[in-house]
Amino acid sequence: MKILLINSNTTEHMTKTVTANAQKVASSDTQIVGMTAKHGPATVEGHVDALIAASATVELIAQHEADFDAFIIACGVDPGLFPARELTSKPVVGIGESAMLMACSLAYRFAILTPQQRLVEVLRHQVHQYGLISRLTAIYPVALSVAAVAQDQNAAIPAFLEAAQRAIAEGAGAIMLGGASSSGMDKALQLQLGVPILDGTACAVLMAESLVRLGLGTANRGAFAPPEPNKRTVGIPAAYQRWYDLN
Amino acid sequence: MKILLINSNTTEHMTKTVTANAQKVASSDTQIVGMTAKHGPATVEGHVDALIAASATVELIAQHEADFDAFIIACGVDPGLFPARELTSKPVVGIGESAMLMACSLAYRFAILTPQQRLVEVLRHQVHQYGLISRLTAIYPVALSVAAVAQDQNAAIPAFLEAAQRAIAEGAGAIMLGGASSSGMDKALQLQLGVPILDGTACAVLMAESLVRLGLGTANRGAFAPPEPNKRTVGIPAAYQRWYDLN
Amino acid sequence: MKILLINSNTTEHMTKTVTANAQKVASSDTQIVGMTAKHGPATVEGHVDALIAASATVELIAQHEADFDAFIIACGVDPGLFPARELTSKPVVGIGESAMLMACSLAYRFAILTPQQRLVEVLRHQVHQYGLISRLTAIYPVALSVAAVAQDQNAAIPAFLEAAQRAIAEGAGAIMLGGASSSGMDKALQLQLGVPILDGTACAVLMAESLVRLGLGTANRGAFAPPEPNKRTVGIPAAYQRWYDLN
Amino acid sequence: MKILLINSNTTEHMTKTVTANAQKVASSDTQIVGMTAKHGPATVEGHVDALIAASATVELIAQHEADFDAFIIACGVDPGLFPARELTSKPVVGIGESAMLMACSLAYRFAILTPQQRLVEVLRHQVHQYGLISRLTAIYPVALSVAAVAQDQNAAIPAFLEAAQRAIAEGAGAIMLGGASSSGMDKALQLQLGVPILDGTACAVLMAESLVRLGLGTANRGAFAPPEPNKRTVGIPAAYQRWYDLN
Amino acid sequence: MKILLINSNTTEHMTKTVTANAQKVASSDTQIVGMTAKHGPATVEGHVDALIAASATVELIAQHEADFDAFIIACGVDPGLFPARELTSKPVVGIGESAMLMACSLAYRFAILTPQQRLVEVLRHQVHQYGLISRLTAIYPVALSVAAVAQDQNAAIPAFLEAAQRAIAEGAGAIMLGGASSSGMDKALQLQLGVPILDGTACAVLMAESLVRLGLGTANRGAFAPPEPNKRTVGIPAAYQRWYDLN
Amino acid sequence: MKILLINSNTTEHMTKTVTANAQKVASSDTQIVGMTAKHGPATVEGHVDALIAASATVELIAQHEADFDAFIIACGVDPGLFPARELTSKPVVGIGESAMLMACSLAYRFAILTPQQRLVEVLRHQVHQYGLISRLTAIYPVALSVAAVAQDQNAAIPAFLEAAQRAIAEGAGAIMLGGASSSGMDKALQLQLGVPILDGTACAVLMAESLVRLGLGTANRGAFAPPEPNKRTVGIPAAYQRWYDLN
Repeated sequence: MKILLINSNTTEHMTKTVTANAQKVASSDTQIVGMTAKHGPATVEGHVDALIAASATVELIAQHEADFDAFIIACGVDPGLFPARELTSKPVVGIGESAMLMACSLAYRFAILTPQQRLVEVLRHQVHQYGLISRLTAIYPVALSVAAVAQDQNAAIPAFLEAAQRAIAEGAGAIMLGGASSSGMDKALQLQLGVPILDGTACAVLMAESLVRLGLGTANRGAFAPPEPNKRTVGIPAAYQRWYDLN
Repeated sequence: MKILLINSNTTEHMTKTVTANAQKVASSDTQIVGMTAKHGPATVEGHVDALIAASATVELIAQHEADFDAFIIACGVDPGLFPARELTSKPVVGIGESAMLMACSLAYRFAILTPQQRLVEVLRHQVHQYGLISRLTAIYPVALSVAAVAQDQNAAIPAFLEAAQRAIAEGAGAIMLGGASSSGMDKALQLQLGVPILDGTACAVLMAESLVRLGLGTANRGAFAPPEPNKRTVGIPAAYQRWYDLN
Repeated sequence: MKILLINSNTTEHMTKTVTANAQKVASSDTQIVGMTAKHGPATVEGHVDALIAASATVELIAQHEADFDAFIIACGVDPGLFPARELTSKPVVGIGESAMLMACSLAYRFAILTPQQRLVEVLRHQVHQYGLISRLTAIYPVALSVAAVAQDQNAAIPAFLEAAQRAIAEGAGAIMLGGASSSGMDKALQLQLGVPILDGTACAVLMAESLVRLGLGTANRGAFAPPEPNKRTVGIPAAYQRWYDLN
Repeated sequence: MKILLINSNTTEHMTKTVTANAQKVASSDTQIVGMTAKHGPATVEGHVDALIAASATVELIAQHEADFDAFIIACGVDPGLFPARELTSKPVVGIGESAMLMACSLAYRFAILTPQQRLVEVLRHQVHQYGLISRLTAIYPVALSVAAVAQDQNAAIPAFLEAAQRAIAEGAGAIMLGGASSSGMDKALQLQLGVPILDGTACAVLMAESLVRLGLGTANRGAFAPPEPNKRTVGIPAAYQRWYDLN
Repeated sequence: MKILLINSNTTEHMTKTVTANAQKVASSDTQIVGMTAKHGPATVEGHVDALIAASATVELIAQHEADFDAFIIACGVDPGLFPARELTSKPVVGIGESAMLMACSLAYRFAILTPQQRLVEVLRHQVHQYGLISRLTAIYPVALSVAAVAQDQNAAIPAFLEAAQRAIAEGAGAIMLGGASSSGMDKALQLQLGVPILDGTACAVLMAESLVRLGLGTANRGAFAPPEPNKRTVGIPAAYQRWYDLN
Repeated sequence: MKILLINSNTTEHMTKTVTANAQKVASSDTQIVGMTAKHGPATVEGHVDALIAASATVELIAQHEADFDAFIIACGVDPGLFPARELTSKPVVGIGESAMLMACSLAYRFAILTPQQRLVEVLRHQVHQYGLISRLTAIYPVALSVAAVAQDQNAAIPAFLEAAQRAIAEGAGAIMLGGASSSGMDKALQLQLGVPILDGTACAVLMAESLVRLGLGTANRGAFAPPEPNKRTVGIPAAYQRWYDLN
């Protein structure tokens, strides 16, 4: 099985790390190919960031749609998830959505931790959009800068533990790490907290593999039906043209 | 007051019509400047369409942010509405959202009519995203092709009346026209049905004017806080750079 | 355009202030006529208050229905909003509802501040009734008596800023002033907080003007259908009789 | 125990019937005193009707508050229920609310039948307001005029059976009769349908008796806190004055 | 009237107390027969506890279905409530559900107090399951062990008062005691707090009596339809056999 | 990896089929051990069925907790899912929940088909309990007896296609088969319908494998915290004793 993992953030070294992490949890016969968004911000932390990142992400999926069995959008706010699903009948999963869905298999209510105060309301909107608000306790900002977390995850552990302990005291049974900077901290936190800590990338790999192995693909009816073919277009990225220009 | 109206569909003649309609309902001291999305599909009917259109729409808003008092996204699914709001503290309104909010001032529950069966679930997701599901009765597809509606609105009236009458019988107090092709049919339908028929473009003009006149602008905290400045980016459209490259 | 603004509180000087404020934001060709509820409490702060105020408010609307183009209920809990809508096919707006709907155009989630602890749960019920709970963060009581606010708004600013800052820290992107006593404090607060502060009266004027200019009126089907004519009645206020006694 | 039952409809003979029905289901030591609203429409079928009826209803409760142990508002849309609750720490129940709450003890989802098409959306709003939408399947209009039902309940049975059978087929486990005209048809329908049929008046009597016997009264904190005393008022009904003029 | 009250906790002396309390609030012609679950934990505080208790509870109801007019499940999380309802067309009520439904007659939003931190999320799931989340403010753990409460209720009063006062300050109008250990503390708390305190057992007795007196029984359609007869079974408790083995 | 699959229905040959199907989709290094509930009905179709089945299911999980890496409850209504989760920190998944969660990765809204009219409301309650109502379009009964489906799946195809086509026309993007009798029909239906058809057993196997491979286990805080140890119990199944009798 070949899975295309797209880092929607334009940070090459993050792509390498995330792809390696993904390959580590993948089955031995799964090949994870990592690609970095061709344009966009270094890290996605809001709606504009996500829009630019979504374009870059969906273009890559469109371009390589024929060559992979499934697609992973490796960015917490899942940029381009719904549009990408219109372009393929293969599975497309986001690391945000996958972590939330798996959390629902482990706990009645989950919390999200993020080192970015700015993301709290953006993530809440995302949970609402997925219809999962009743499964969320709250979203907790960690009192650290993203940069600080990225530079030294070990030093960041105490701040994450503090936020997580508050989340648990307030009802959460599972905790999702909402930002790429904290990717890889899940095992250390889980060991100390005794509740499941969900890392989105890992969840997405397993969700994608599962869907492929089951012969399940994205719905091409309902909200994710493909674009109408033969529609007049202007200057759309070349990658999309085969969906529009069918004659 | 100067309002930039962006037709997210790449159809020049539609821009002319919509801008003229918008100018007609605007105050005498309001100037509506219409612009057409520089790239994208002729008509927006799904998530990929909307993503491409959102990029084109938000780029135009970013580019002209300083020159206008408010911005209208003239496309029923409001492409780029949330990202655009991060880029300005001036009002940004979508014709879909404005029609829904005004409908809530006129009726307890409203219905949406669309000539595009394909849009039914997309619009439902949009209403859910806005948190307005309890104010919606249902979304009714009109049994006509979009092309047929666009070519001869008069001939389309009976099909719209039929769908509207079903909507009213099933509880709707107001009806929103969900597609650009039906723009301009509101008065004729309203006359025959005796319930308010909401045309999104008209609603958006008045909503934008109202916010400007009240000195109210988009929130720059919460979910619509502006992008973090000085973030490293790759190949983002020039229009966005002044938000990112502040040094 | 002539708009009847009804102060549902029986406080004449408040009517003068509110009408003046309303006229200030109205278009030059709009005439705002202020009237004070003929009976009821000085200020509306609960369900009984609101019931008495609603009777007085709706009677005035009924009595003057033919003479105005739209109606504003100038009281935060919108007394009589739904009944008034049954009596006219012209727009009827409440300052509470208008502020909430406009807030939805500016922020994903809004907060409400009120100097009346007693109103917190009443306002929450109102937001629930309008189906907008998912757009609300919370309702914050300001630690001041209503009288104190009314007597010296400048002295009240610090207490409002404190509550507003807590609201913003907890996710609100826009803030609505929920009580008449704080009307007029919006600009000063907005300047210091950098988030949109919504004053209900101003919002209602613009919403009413917008609906009139668009030829949109209250639904006469669904939940707001007019009373059945020719129904036997006992001692109903004279103002209502033309809806009931049609023969 | 003395319970004041107020028929919010100004129809004396209906008061007699309803009071007799109420007395029939009451405990032997309970005295039901029926009173008819002093003013208002013969039958309550919308928001204006309900507002006028609410005034008359709440005034009667205010006037006789000291003399009874509990209060029943005998009208399906529960006019004045929330305001009345502010005026007393004794139980106040509505026949609509009581039937819904008891239905929740018998079935997971219930339906409402009403001979008044006009009431369908009004009742839906009421269920939403009570937070019980997830327990409702739907509201079914019965294809008969209210007058026809009132005149000959036996002749109306087939139409009710038809609507009820549709309700059951669509998931309802219990059925609530939403209109006063159908009061008394519950036993006949229940016999033929084999599902519980809830008559609001009966439910309200038992709910009121239960609360009294348990020493439970209306909350005087939260949304139903009593009016602020010593507030300046203008021309409010004499009945209310003891709540306002405490000095 | 004969009501079977089942203590789902296997604690004989608790059964005696609860039955006595139930008899105290029951009508003089009602006989409450208390039975203790034949197997299960001493106190029910989670899903496994509840499953074991549900089996024991439903078996007792099945066994004695013919001999009683109604059934009370005397355990806050209502173990076996929905299955029991399939087995009888007589009323089956739970003390948790009854208290919540009655609270809805007294306050717009209620809170729940429990001495068991462990139960907070379990109770929240229960409220969600009943569709009543919008009527709940929050669930407050009382800072005391269950044992401490059970041993000396008087000594526990201050801790309950503290939690209740927080609940009231945060919007609750009524307070429900969520655990059996606090049964009987309602009157003392109510006296000091001035808000209704709901004791589940008392509520359930009155709800059950009410339903019986009204001739209302559990729905045998919808979610609570009886088991399919003549289904092949293996080793099911003898008590159930008459529902399955009809030939 | 060793997974214990429990058929909550006491039908041995079904266990064989389901286990074989499960093994077919499992990884080569996963061993699926099928066990049949020791007591209970042949097929689970309601709350009593589910309660008896839940006891049998949870007992088997408790008994074999130490010997497996994960547990699958192979019955559409997921009997015992929440209690089982309290007894282990290993993953426990239900075929109903797993199919719903995976459907959320493929479509915005899904439908459920069931040959059992009786199950429609039971399944709806289940979806509500999981907080996923906004992702559900509707539940469609297939006009066939369960026996008919079980005996000849090929002959049942047309009836399923008809229900599925209605579901798709009404907005569903993915379809879940809600009953064990239709297990195995997914591929044939998917081929003809062009939308993803989810078979619960297959979904559960992949979900369980995924969680195990990720080192994620059931939350032992929040709603699924383990039972309090050393609690006095009476006659509980031996399987549970090691959770209760820790001394």
